[in-house]
Amino acid sequence: MSYGKIFSILKENNLSYWNSYTKHDFVSKLSNSTLNKKIFLNYLIQDYLFLIQFSKAWSLAIVKSDTLDEMKVAANTVNGLINFEMDLHIDLCGSYGISKIDLENANEENENIAYTRYVLEAGYSGDLLDLMAALIPCVLGYGEIGINNRNIKPEELMYQKWLETYSSKEYQQICKEVATMFDNAVSLRLGKNYNNNYKWNSIKKIFRKAVLLEIDFWNMAMRLDN
Amino acid sequence: MSYGKIFSILKENNLSYWNSYTKHDFVSKLSNSTLNKKIFLNYLIQDYLFLIQFSKAWSLAIVKSDTLDEMKVAANTVNGLINFEMDLHIDLCGSYGISKIDLENANEENENIAYTRYVLEAGYSGDLLDLMAALIPCVLGYGEIGINNRNIKPEELMYQKWLETYSSKEYQQICKEVATMFDNAVSLRLGKNYNNNYKWNSIKKIFRKAVLLEIDFWNMAMRLDN
Amino acid sequence: MSYGKIFSILKENNLSYWNSYTKHDFVSKLSNSTLNKKIFLNYLIQDYLFLIQFSKAWSLAIVKSDTLDEMKVAANTVNGLINFEMDLHIDLCGSYGISKIDLENANEENENIAYTRYVLEAGYSGDLLDLMAALIPCVLGYGEIGINNRNIKPEELMYQKWLETYSSKEYQQICKEVATMFDNAVSLRLGKNYNNNYKWNSIKKIFRKAVLLEIDFWNMAMRLDN
Amino acid sequence: MSYGKIFSILKENNLSYWNSYTKHDFVSKLSNSTLNKKIFLNYLIQDYLFLIQFSKAWSLAIVKSDTLDEMKVAANTVNGLINFEMDLHIDLCGSYGISKIDLENANEENENIAYTRYVLEAGYSGDLLDLMAALIPCVLGYGEIGINNRNIKPEELMYQKWLETYSSKEYQQICKEVATMFDNAVSLRLGKNYNNNYKWNSIKKIFRKAVLLEIDFWNMAMRLDN
Repeated sequence: MSYGKIFSILKENNLSYWNSYTKHDFVSKLSNSTLNKKIFLNYLIQDYLFLIQFSKAWSLAIVKSDTLDEMKVAANTVNGLINFEMDLHIDLCGSYGISKIDLENANEENENIAYTRYVLEAGYSGDLLDLMAALIPCVLGYGEIGINNRNIKPEELMYQKWLETYSSKEYQQICKEVATMFDNAVSLRLGKNYNNNYKWNSIKKIFRKAVLLEIDFWNMAMRLDN
Repeated sequence: MSYGKIFSILKENNLSYWNSYTKHDFVSKLSNSTLNKKIFLNYLIQDYLFLIQFSKAWSLAIVKSDTLDEMKVAANTVNGLINFEMDLHIDLCGSYGISKIDLENANEENENIAYTRYVLEAGYSGDLLDLMAALIPCVLGYGEIGINNRNIKPEELMYQKWLETYSSKEYQQICKEVATMFDNAVSLRLGKNYNNNYKWNSIKKIFRKAVLLEIDFWNMAMRLDN
Repeated sequence: MSYGKIFSILKENNLSYWNSYTKHDFVSKLSNSTLNKKIFLNYLIQDYLFLIQFSKAWSLAIVKSDTLDEMKVAANTVNGLINFEMDLHIDLCGSYGISKIDLENANEENENIAYTRYVLEAGYSGDLLDLMAALIPCVLGYGEIGINNRNIKPEELMYQKWLETYSSKEYQQICKEVATMFDNAVSLRLGKNYNNNYKWNSIKKIFRKAVLLEIDFWNMAMRLDN
Repeated sequence: MSYGKIFSILKENNLSYWNSYTKHDFVSKLSNSTLNKKIFLNYLIQDYLFLIQFSKAWSLAIVKSDTLDEMKVAANTVNGLINFEMDLHIDLCGSYGISKIDLENANEENENIAYTRYVLEAGYSGDLLDLMAALIPCVLGYGEIGINNRNIKPEELMYQKWLETYSSKEYQQICKEVATMFDNAVSLRLGKNYNNNYKWNSIKKIFRKAVLLEIDFWNMAMRLDN
C-alpha cells in the first residue's frame, strides 16, 4: 500500500520517526484492547479540539490553492471533516457520557496546541506545499494505521469502530485523493527536479516536524489517564 | 422579503448605494434583454475569476469561525460555490465558445481585483464580523436581484438562466442561512447593544465599501464591451 | 541608474506600462509646476491612506522572511515608512490646512483600495517573492521618478519638496537595499535558473499587475480635482 | 511595580500560573548561579529561534493595528527585537563558541514551536487584542523577572548580563509602552465595560494559555541539559 510518490519519499526519509508515530504504544494497545478506556476518551476529546483546528488548516489549503482541482480536493476534505468526522466524534463521545458542551469547553493540551498551531501557521506563512507537508502526516498516517490494523477486531467495541473508520473505503479514498493532489501540486510548482530545490528542503523540514508533533500527540494521550 | 436583522439595518443605512448596486443598468438591461451579449460574456469571465477569490474568502470564514455552526454554514457556502456555481459558469461560458482555459487565462480587471482583494484582506486582517460584512453584499445583493426579477423572463435564454439561478430556492436558501449566521455571529460577539460598539463602526464601514466596490464591478462590466 | 538585476528584467518586460506609470501626466505636470494644487493635495491624502496599508504590507514581509537579513531590510523599510515618510505627509498636509484627523477620516478611493489590498493579499496568500513582486513597483518606481527629475526644481515649493524626497540619498539608499534584498531572495529560493520556474511566472504576473494598479492610482489622482 | 491596568487584572486572575512562570526554577537557579551552564546555553539557542518567530508576531501586530500610535509601538518593538535583542543573543552565544550558523541550524524544540506558533496563529486568526494577549506574557513577564532580581548580581557573568538586560531602563521602557498601548487598545475597542464582553473572554483565555506555554518553555530549558 502506498499513497503517492512524494509522501513515500518523505516517509522513507523519516522512517524511524514515522514508525514511532504510526506504531505508537497507543495504537498497539488499542489494537489489542489493552488501552485504558480513560486514556482513549481523553484522546477523543483532544482529537475533537484538534479536528476543529485541522478543518481550519484544510480551509486555508483552499485559500492557498492555485488551481480549481486543488481547491476541490481541499474543499472535499473540509466537508468530510466538518460534516462527518466531527459529528462521529460527537456521537462516539456522547455514547460515553461526554456531551458536545463538554467537548467544546475541554482544555486544549499544550501538545495539541503545538501541533495544530504549527500546521495553521505553516498555512498562513507559507504556500500550499508548506501547508500540505504539514497536513499529510496526520491524514495519511491515520490511513496507514487503518490499513495496518484492518484485520484486527479489538474486543472493545469503541476501538473496533475507531479502527474501522480509518480502514474504511471512504477514508482510504480521501487519502488517495489527498496524496495525488500533493503529488500534482509538487509537480506543478517544482517540476521534475523537485528535490533539487530550496522549497523541497522546506517541505522535508515541515513534514518531519509534523511527524514529531504527532508522536507528542500520542504521548500526550498516554499521559492523560485520569 | 428580507434576509435577517443586521443585513436589513446595514442596507437601510446605505439605501441609495444599495439601489445603485442592485438596480444597476446592467441588471435592468439584462432583465429586459437589451444588454449587449458581449458585455454579458465578458462579465461572466470576470465573474468566474471573482468566484475563485470569493470561494477563498468564504474558506477564510471557516478559519475565522468561533463555533461549529458558523463553520458549517461557511463550509456549505464554499461547497456551493466550488462544486456548483463555478461549474455552472464553466458550462454557461462553454456553450458560448469560452473554454475553461480561456477563463483561467483571462485578465483580471482592476475593479475585479479591487473587490476580491478587499474582501480577502478584510478576512485575513479582521475577524469573522469584518469578513462577513464584506461577504454579504454580494451574496444577499444577488439574492435580492433574483427576487426582484423573479417574474421576469428575458427573451435571451442566457439572461433567463442567470436570473433563475439567483431566484432559485437553492440560492435563496443559502441567502437565508448566511443571513441567520451573520445575525447570530453579531449577537454572540456584540450582544444586545451591538450598535453601541467600536466593532459596529467597522462592520458599517466595510459593508458600505463592499457595496461601492460592487457598483464598480457592474461599471467595469458595462465598460468591457468588446 | 538601476536597482538590481531582477527588477531590471521585470521592468524591461513591462517597459510600456512602466513608462505609463513613471512618466504619467501627474508626474510631468508636477515637474513643470502645471499640476493643479487641489489634485496634488487630494493625492497626498490618498497617499497617506496608502502608506498605512503599505507599511502593513512591509510588516508582512518581515513575517514572510526566511533569513535575518531579509527581516532586517523589511524592518528598516517599515521603520522608514512609519517613523519618517508618514510624519512627512502629516507635516506637508498640515502646512496646507489638512489636519491629521482629516487624513485619518478621508475616504479611501476604490483605486487606492485596489492597489493596497492587492499587495496585502499577495503577502498573506503568497510567499516573500510574491509579496516583494507587489511591493517593488511602488518603492523603485518612486525612486526612478526621483532620479529622472533630480535636476528639476519646480517653482511650486510643495512639488520641489516632493521630488527632493524621492531623489534624496536616504530614499535612494532604501531603494538599493530593497533591490539587493529582492535579488538575493530570488537567488536563494530559485537559484540560477530562476526564470525557468513556476514561481517566476507568478512574480512576473504580480509585478505587472502592481504596475497597472500604480497607473490607476495616478489616474485616480487626476480625477480627484475638487 | 506594575505595567498598566489590563495586564494587572489578567495577572491577578492567573497569579498561581504567573508565579510558576516568573519564579520558575530556571530563574531562581540563574539568580543564585546554580543553573547548569549547558542548560543556559541551550536555552539561549532556543530563545534565539523563539525571538525570530516572536519578531514576526510583533510585525503582525503592526498589520493588525487600527491607529498610527499602535503601529508605532509595535514597530518600535520589532526594531528592538530585530536590531538589538537578536544581535545580543548572537554575541552572547558567540562568546561561548556557538556561531550564528549553529543558531540558525538548531532544532526547534516542540515546546518552543508550541508557544511561537500559538502566538503567531492568534495574530493571524484573531485581532490586535487577541494577539496582544498572547504577546504580553513574554514581554512583561521578562520585565518582572528583571525587576524582581534587579539587586541580584549572580557570580556567573553570563547570568548577570542576562538579568541586567531585562532590568535595564531600555527594556523597562519598552514594557511600559507596550502595557500602555495594550490598555489603550482595549479601551478603544471595548470601552469602559471591557470586562463584560465576548472579546474579554477571548483575551483571558489567550493570556492564560500563553502563560502556560511560557512555563513549558522553562520546563523545556531544564530538560535540555546536554
